[in-house]
Amino acid sequence: MRRSSFADVHCPIAQSMEIIGEWWTPLILRDAFFGVRRFDDFARRLGIARNVLADRLDTLVEGGVLEKRPYDEARGRYDYVLTEKGRALWPVLVALRQWGDEWVLGEGNEPVLLEHQGCGHVVHVEPTCGHCGERLDARSVRAVAGPAAPPDTLLPPPGS
Amino acid sequence: MRRSSFADVHCPIAQSMEIIGEWWTPLILRDAFFGVRRFDDFARRLGIARNVLADRLDTLVEGGVLEKRPYDEARGRYDYVLTEKGRALWPVLVALRQWGDEWVLGEGNEPVLLEHQGCGHVVHVEPTCGHCGERLDARSVRAVAGPAAPPDTLLPPPGS
Repeated sequence: MRRSSFADVHCPIAQSMEIIGEWWTPLILRDAFFGVRRFDDFARRLGIARNVLADRLDTLVEGGVLEKRPYDEARGRYDYVLTEKGRALWPVLVALRQWGDEWVLGEGNEPVLLEHQGCGHVVHVEPTCGHCGERLDARSVRAVAGPAAPPDTLLPPPGS
Repeated sequence: MRRSSFADVHCPIAQSMEIIGEWWTPLILRDAFFGVRRFDDFARRLGIARNVLADRLDTLVEGGVLEKRPYDEARGRYDYVLTEKGRALWPVLVALRQWGDEWVLGEGNEPVLLEHQGCGHVVHVEPTCGHCGERLDARSVRAVAGPAAPPDTLLPPPGS
């Protein structure tokens, strides 16, 4: 009963998941942001089956998130490097990391901390409004119909 | 070859995915943030099989993301409402939405826009440093060992 694709669902979250929502993929992206580039390094760090890793990397390359750069053309070996579209996923990854640290692992159990190179402090990321700079949460925004609003399912129910 | 659980992986991203990483779950959370609470409303809006929806909602309740509130005890009917832990997922959902809008659907194809109630503008969320307020991206932070750093796989490779 597992839906195999959200390709036909006109929703940015569904479309994002179509590219990065497969099992393992967020951990591959985590390592790509750490600077991992080589197939063997991903495989070793993740303990993932090679055929599954190859499949996930292919999806990310097709989705424009990673690009293959040959480093040993004679042997057909590639680095997998984040594209601009891939680097734009950083807010997703950092939000997942922060939620997992705060709400699942708990304070003191963080395996990795992010340090802001600008101010030197451990980073707690806050989502802010790009227009006025105020801090945002679910209650400070409301959903309105976008330019491609469907007539039905993707809008909030009446009165919500 | 699909790993069935990341429960034993000491990484906040893996632990987050253990609760919210299943197929369909981000769309269920999207609708929960829109104010959807009823099983039948989730089922109708998502077009999801009822047994799959029941399974996903159970995982979210067990993970502390949603709580069940009886609205018709005689018939055993419940609302599914975001907890504080669930509302803390808002930055993850909004980051997925923004990436999908910007990099997959493209400008002009957004089904939904978020409006900041404070300043009235359409929201473009920016991740900022909670300490100094500066805007953050992947290049402005560096990963350092946390208090529960493992000896090996979860840290950046040397020189990255």
